[in-house]
Amino acid sequence: MAKTSPFDQKKHAILQEIGVTSEDVPDASPKGTIDELCLPVINLINSHPDMVTTSLCSGRVSVFLEGNKTQSQIGAKGNEGRWLFVTHEPENLENWYDSLDFKYQEAKVIDGTTRYILFKFEPLILHVKCRDLNTANLLFSTAMGCGFRETGIGSNNIVGIRILIKLDIPIGYFDDGKLVLFVSKNYLQVVTKLSLDRFNENFRKMHQLEDAIKDMGVAGIDDIESKEQRRERMIKEGLERREAVRAEKERKKLEKLKLEGKQ
Amino acid sequence: MAKTSPFDQKKHAILQEIGVTSEDVPDASPKGTIDELCLPVINLINSHPDMVTTSLCSGRVSVFLEGNKTQSQIGAKGNEGRWLFVTHEPENLENWYDSLDFKYQEAKVIDGTTRYILFKFEPLILHVKCRDLNTANLLFSTAMGCGFRETGIGSNNIVGIRILIKLDIPIGYFDDGKLVLFVSKNYLQVVTKLSLDRFNENFRKMHQLEDAIKDMGVAGIDDIESKEQRRERMIKEGLERREAVRAEKERKKLEKLKLEGKQ
Repeated sequence: MAKTSPFDQKKHAILQEIGVTSEDVPDASPKGTIDELCLPVINLINSHPDMVTTSLCSGRVSVFLEGNKTQSQIGAKGNEGRWLFVTHEPENLENWYDSLDFKYQEAKVIDGTTRYILFKFEPLILHVKCRDLNTANLLFSTAMGCGFRETGIGSNNIVGIRILIKLDIPIGYFDDGKLVLFVSKNYLQVVTKLSLDRFNENFRKMHQLEDAIKDMGVAGIDDIESKEQRRERMIKEGLERREAVRAEKERKKLEKLKLEGKQ
Repeated sequence: MAKTSPFDQKKHAILQEIGVTSEDVPDASPKGTIDELCLPVINLINSHPDMVTTSLCSGRVSVFLEGNKTQSQIGAKGNEGRWLFVTHEPENLENWYDSLDFKYQEAKVIDGTTRYILFKFEPLILHVKCRDLNTANLLFSTAMGCGFRETGIGSNNIVGIRILIKLDIPIGYFDDGKLVLFVSKNYLQVVTKLSLDRFNENFRKMHQLEDAIKDMGVAGIDDIESKEQRRERMIKEGLERREAVRAEKERKKLEKLKLEGKQ
């Protein structure tokens, strides 16, 4: 396939950008660099001629302090919102709460302006731009088959691969510069244990997806005519038919002229 | 458009099924009947000739007891899993916890087989089957434009409209027939208040989506030729051209015969 198609140009640009991501040149995510745990699945997808990863998170635990609230911003970054803790690696979870200056006490003042502290487990999320709708449909079915039930195709043949292994837990609030928790340290230990279970399940699903994408292969895609290919073929066939009609008319005209000449 | 297309048959069957859902003939959801809060958006979508709702939840708070665990079933229903409380209506949230026999105490025995009690807020989710990919793309853009950022198109032009206003909170566990909570009643009051905020935000987004779908209208769709329509038109035009070529050949043959007859 020609390397100058819009898809190939986009893929080339993305791969170049990934190439330069480092501690000095971070990307936009809170971690700042590409998630190493994703590298096998990133490399696998990008080695496929018809797919390129546009964004990816291998799964993470985060503790987030909401920003100052204006109208309807639940869990939003907004003004002054910030991550208190983020990790993509289960081994960093041990006693994470000891590194933060939490005050443990029952909730007192809760109103519409309260800035909550949220503990979250977010699973693998993966956006893959595909060359055509056929590849997008194939990747969609592959991901759904692995249990990524929230997967969907968006605009420009970008497939969002999502699964619903989550935790989304308010654990406290911001009170005059203090991080007040309305759950106990014992509770934090429980949700940390539950996050480890979710990390395991998440990595299990990631590997299952990897294997399924390997099986998806390239051959299967080339064998099936995509809608785009079909459209192109039909346009080509349509033009050929039109040309045939035009040629017939031309010949008929010439014959008529010959006929008239003979008469 | 003919009323016997596969889409129209499917739409007819779904509308008939929705018609008979009642307290006596419940559907498969835990509530058992169609969510009344969704009726305006269901009716709006189903009045559109190219769309039909296939499943819908207006948003809900649920308290769920996990089933007995085998391998990797986080939050799964499985064996003996059950809802302890479900409501789609914010007004039912008041003191919901008093209707359940909870024991409040610190977590003690937590291991791989622990059956957790999960408190969840789940926002509006809506699946809409569209007649063709063009309608699906239009609905996708409409929903994304309203902030339903987890929206995606699945197989058979079914659009899954999703938003990420969630709560997913382990609040306790099942211990020898008892529902033990490792959070305080005060904490339940806080998450109930947060659920009310999320219900408000959820309904605000639902109405925003409704308005946007109204604006999407039918005219706009009819003006744009869908891929399916284009395909059909091209097939028709192709057949017409082929017919024209055939007719030309026929005429040419006849003319030749006439010519030969005259010679």
